Amino acid sequence: MNTPPSERLGTGTPRLSLNRWTFRTTAIQEFLEVAASHGIDAVGLWRQDVAEVGLDALRRRVDDAGLRVSSLCRGGFLTAAADADRAEALEDNRRAIDETAALGAPTLVLVVGGISREDKDIAGARSRVTEAIATLAPYAEERGVTLSLEPLHPMFAADRAVVSTLDQALDIAEASGSPAAGVVVDTYHVWWDPYLERAIKRAAAAERLWSYQVCDWNLPLAAEPLHSRGYMGDGYIDFPAITTMIREAGYTGDIEVEIFNEDVWATPADDAASIIAERFGQLVLPHA
Amino acid sequence: MNTPPSERLGTGTPRLSLNRWTFRTTAIQEFLEVAASHGIDAVGLWRQDVAEVGLDALRRRVDDAGLRVSSLCRGGFLTAAADADRAEALEDNRRAIDETAALGAPTLVLVVGGISREDKDIAGARSRVTEAIATLAPYAEERGVTLSLEPLHPMFAADRAVVSTLDQALDIAEASGSPAAGVVVDTYHVWWDPYLERAIKRAAAAERLWSYQVCDWNLPLAAEPLHSRGYMGDGYIDFPAITTMIREAGYTGDIEVEIFNEDVWATPADDAASIIAERFGQLVLPHA
Repeated sequence: MNTPPSERLGTGTPRLSLNRWTFRTTAIQEFLEVAASHGIDAVGLWRQDVAEVGLDALRRRVDDAGLRVSSLCRGGFLTAAADADRAEALEDNRRAIDETAALGAPTLVLVVGGISREDKDIAGARSRVTEAIATLAPYAEERGVTLSLEPLHPMFAADRAVVSTLDQALDIAEASGSPAAGVVVDTYHVWWDPYLERAIKRAAAAERLWSYQVCDWNLPLAAEPLHSRGYMGDGYIDFPAITTMIREAGYTGDIEVEIFNEDVWATPADDAASIIAERFGQLVLPHA
Repeated sequence: MNTPPSERLGTGTPRLSLNRWTFRTTAIQEFLEVAASHGIDAVGLWRQDVAEVGLDALRRRVDDAGLRVSSLCRGGFLTAAADADRAEALEDNRRAIDETAALGAPTLVLVVGGISREDKDIAGARSRVTEAIATLAPYAEERGVTLSLEPLHPMFAADRAVVSTLDQALDIAEASGSPAAGVVVDTYHVWWDPYLERAIKRAAAAERLWSYQVCDWNLPLAAEPLHSRGYMGDGYIDFPAITTMIREAGYTGDIEVEIFNEDVWATPADDAASIIAERFGQLVLPHA
């Protein structure tokens, strides 16, 4: 079913994976067809797709479209302090790991969760994440998938993710003692990091660099800062520079385009896919 | 004129300095009088005050109010690539250093500047900052003042400051080869940093920690993210934890409250000063 990438190079864009949330306003089936019609090999899916379509049916649709799943998004939300909340979060993450394996995706992306105004102890929340990853990584390892910790931009440290830099994500991954814990590099979240090149090398040397996601940093920030992600080239990120770091570190996997942006969501999916493929070909692929 | 702090401890709030921009909607003379009437020893001033009042007159007014100037804000904007722009920026920073000395302030706070959509080379911009600091620090040293590099929150890396972490600011300060180059720790900008405690220790050990500024991180972010600074206690920052790091590092200087917030600016200055003194006494001073 799945045409090997090497046979499709001439028609599509090698390395490019379309993340589902870039097309969240498009029905799942149309999204898969748009990806396939652009000669793209892989898509990044979300657990919402699993909930909507069903796990087996979703896998079948992906296979039928000749696609692979480059990642499943997202597990995480592991900062709760109460025992019951923590147990529930671990159980939900085990389900997410099972779904990742069932979809044939290599990795589950984790957004680890934030703190509250009542409990401002960010160091404590970070310790709980470290413990949770050490608990979950062996479960993932047994099922043949990896966990990709996603450092989120520090502007989300309070409300979304207390993992804020690539180095910190690597510290947590390494503390797990499991080879199944690693990281995803998302340009929107890490582009500003003065130690980014060193951290990317470290991730690759540790064999823990499992996903590369791209989109631009648009200004002014959107009212919902998560939605300030833009098409590559629309903002301030130096894609040739960061993609070169990724290549030189030895990463050869899929590159997901993940854009949360009201304007993109209002654009017909086929048009958005064309813009993405064009920008990817200009700014990312030549350096990948 | 200036009553020594030791004689005023009983009436005011020791260590507290009010930053001028917290009261930007209040006339300068009223601001100074409000600070003095609350038994506060020091104020952080801005170059806009110098431009408005005149350097000598401003110094006289501060003296007459029995206050000290804890810092002058701000120099910087050193990322321009063109020779003429760069020369002009250096010259303007030399004037800012002269003003700092004339006001009897120990340190000039520097916001280093950003990049542009046309020149996305953040590494290049950072190199230019490093060079400029090495050029300016000896000039400051000769005039008996220091330069406090301010790492700004990474959400400002594109448009305001390519110095994004305390460690990076220290790298730049140390590269200057001058003891006059150091850092300011502003909670709003660095609270999220997983390596903050280590970096504060490093700054103190290097004798380059010269200012501590506090305000909270309010969510949702204001439309202008700079204005999401809040009274201590209104947001997500753990002031006891960070202030303890600062104390344990050996910092004994002024602690400036610097809040940019439309609601605070709409509050009568005397009321805002009372709220600040109360929150400072609850959340900061006991740990300082």
